[in-house]
Amino acid sequence: MTAPTRTRSEANAEAVERLCAADPVVVDVQPALDAIPGYSRNLVLTSGAPLPWPEYAGGQRDAIIGGVLFEGLAATREEAIAALDAGEVRVRSCQDFGAVGSLAGIYTASMPVFVVQNAVHGNRAFCNFYEGKDPRRLNYGCYDEGVHERLEHVNTVYAPVVGEAIRRTGGVPLKPLIAKGLRMGDECHSRNTASSLLFVRELLGAAMDMAGSDTDRVRETFLHVADNDYFFLRLSMAAGKAIAGSIDGFAGSSVVSAMAFSCKEFAIRVAGLGGEWFRGPTPVHEGKLFPGHDESEITWMGGESPITETVGLGGFAQACAFTLQEYQGGSPDTMIARNLEMYQITAGENTTFRIPVFGFRGTPTGVDVFKVLETGVLPVMDVGLAGRDGGQIGAGVIRAPRECFERAASRWPGGDPGD
Amino acid sequence: MTAPTRTRSEANAEAVERLCAADPVVVDVQPALDAIPGYSRNLVLTSGAPLPWPEYAGGQRDAIIGGVLFEGLAATREEAIAALDAGEVRVRSCQDFGAVGSLAGIYTASMPVFVVQNAVHGNRAFCNFYEGKDPRRLNYGCYDEGVHERLEHVNTVYAPVVGEAIRRTGGVPLKPLIAKGLRMGDECHSRNTASSLLFVRELLGAAMDMAGSDTDRVRETFLHVADNDYFFLRLSMAAGKAIAGSIDGFAGSSVVSAMAFSCKEFAIRVAGLGGEWFRGPTPVHEGKLFPGHDESEITWMGGESPITETVGLGGFAQACAFTLQEYQGGSPDTMIARNLEMYQITAGENTTFRIPVFGFRGTPTGVDVFKVLETGVLPVMDVGLAGRDGGQIGAGVIRAPRECFERAASRWPGGDPGD
Repeated sequence: MTAPTRTRSEANAEAVERLCAADPVVVDVQPALDAIPGYSRNLVLTSGAPLPWPEYAGGQRDAIIGGVLFEGLAATREEAIAALDAGEVRVRSCQDFGAVGSLAGIYTASMPVFVVQNAVHGNRAFCNFYEGKDPRRLNYGCYDEGVHERLEHVNTVYAPVVGEAIRRTGGVPLKPLIAKGLRMGDECHSRNTASSLLFVRELLGAAMDMAGSDTDRVRETFLHVADNDYFFLRLSMAAGKAIAGSIDGFAGSSVVSAMAFSCKEFAIRVAGLGGEWFRGPTPVHEGKLFPGHDESEITWMGGESPITETVGLGGFAQACAFTLQEYQGGSPDTMIARNLEMYQITAGENTTFRIPVFGFRGTPTGVDVFKVLETGVLPVMDVGLAGRDGGQIGAGVIRAPRECFERAASRWPGGDPGD
Repeated sequence: MTAPTRTRSEANAEAVERLCAADPVVVDVQPALDAIPGYSRNLVLTSGAPLPWPEYAGGQRDAIIGGVLFEGLAATREEAIAALDAGEVRVRSCQDFGAVGSLAGIYTASMPVFVVQNAVHGNRAFCNFYEGKDPRRLNYGCYDEGVHERLEHVNTVYAPVVGEAIRRTGGVPLKPLIAKGLRMGDECHSRNTASSLLFVRELLGAAMDMAGSDTDRVRETFLHVADNDYFFLRLSMAAGKAIAGSIDGFAGSSVVSAMAFSCKEFAIRVAGLGGEWFRGPTPVHEGKLFPGHDESEITWMGGESPITETVGLGGFAQACAFTLQEYQGGSPDTMIARNLEMYQITAGENTTFRIPVFGFRGTPTGVDVFKVLETGVLPVMDVGLAGRDGGQIGAGVIRAPRECFERAASRWPGGDPGD
């Protein structure tokens, strides 16, 4: 076997450079069927490393069934299950299509997605829309008339209006918005208050122009965007996926290119190891629950928003967002300590995403599988917590399980080539 | 002499309660002549404890002359000076009219002001508009055709549009916006990026409605507001003045009710000592200058934005705004240390304005003259720095001079009544 032409640490440094150079621009909003290559009418995407349909359980299974019903691929829950059992409706993994799923992460053909183009490396990524503040959402495993109506409203009002504003603006570069958001108390995973407003600011001129002829819908849409602190998360996730796409299959690098979970497993992908998922148990968490809920209700139903941590945001920029302590628990000292800890396991520091309280030090960027194993420090992620009966019941931090990193390392070609 | 019915510390605690209870709401935009009681066509207001006209020097003198010209009270600089010398144009102190001046703080009759009503205590306060990003501004001692045009544009476009939006909205409570701003990296003196956007969000519905019939002006105005991080400062100042007004003349309290400076002096007012100004030398500063400028150019031409520090914002909330280190120098550690220091000289902690990095501790609120003297800690303020030749040349922190506090203490009725 020939020696690699560059060392692992050289490849990792280059991978971080690619992550920092990537330039995600949201260019359009289109239904998944039109926007996502390879999409088909009977396809449902869901979060996490792929599982055979029968293995999806609990809220994630309910969410998939809800997606089938929402898309009109079946008329009843029983028919939906039958169609899934028969393979008439296919279930696949979001990230195999360049999409990322929030919680259960359900995509169906008619659902509008943000189309994010990486202007430097040419790859595309997609994310669908935030469903709104109601804790009952399809992506939290709920499906009923209210969920249906809210999704339908996204399809027919919010998405077309936002899409037109984006097209009129000629595309909105997302990295500057995220960088500004980090200076304004966001970490762009569990807190997106500033970046949602910054996104409104980018579209304000287009919104004003559009308001002249279609005041009601435009007014409602932009008030929705401005008032929903979580709106920007889907853009942050799509940006994260577009950035991470720049190192997909990047030879020789042990930098993580995706972290995601399903109802059953946490899993990571590694740049130098192609599209394979390295699986482990569901993550451990520390969280803060909304009043009236308790720990025993917490359930895993998937989540791919850790794509933000993969590119140096979220838990890796936690010290930007001290206000999160109120929402997900913890103290400013814990948040600082956790954030600093992440520098031990990353291959570099971001050149655009910076942390004011650390004197504008770049966020820790590019988790190195081998550093995780050497230090025993596990990647931290800020996430929403789902309840057994569906819906969001709290928020907190989770840690990726060590097993994923062990499995990835054991697959390293020719063994660990050393630094 | 009878003993006071409440101790000084009781009076101070009550003063802080009043500062915390005050509820500033921006209800209108009107020309100074119409909005400010006692205003007249030939009146110019300027920053700081009052001085006889001939004592205003440098940029502040130039700014006053510029105000006379802008208002059309004279046709040439020489005529303006003659009118001022003759007392045909009167120069008075902003705060004697419930107004607060940014830098030189020039008010003339036609200039639109935000009208801010304290919904709890009934007093009103006023602040005029931000002139825009150009470093040449009337309030920084500049007056030329460009300055004139930009002020005229405020008068004829920005102010009427913003005023109509405020009236349509039925008034905008400012404390919630400031409180949110503090969670989003603002301290609402030298950084107002988030609060400016939050203000846009409050007016967004009205803006959309107005855009239907007057797209161009409405579009231009709201893009101006959203793109000018300093826009909200004038609202923060008016809110500060409306809040501080709740303790004007509050008997028995040694809490500071105003801090301001002119070209010649720094000065404070104290709640229990009525309208008297206690004067000292111009402040000491540590700053960061824009490229191409040096220390020798720094000049004092007035400033009343320290009304924000008076109510627990700005330098007293500096640990909310680590991004300021880039603009005004200093490090996060210095900012934290300075902010913590302020708790030594304040009579209480704010119940609405809170600091995320301190675990949401309320901002230090209500500077106590006697605590300043006991500890030797001087109040810190975040300010813009003006250059000798006019215009902004940097930003930094200043400290109020000890002499003001000594003079106030020496005037304490019956001597220091003790705690």
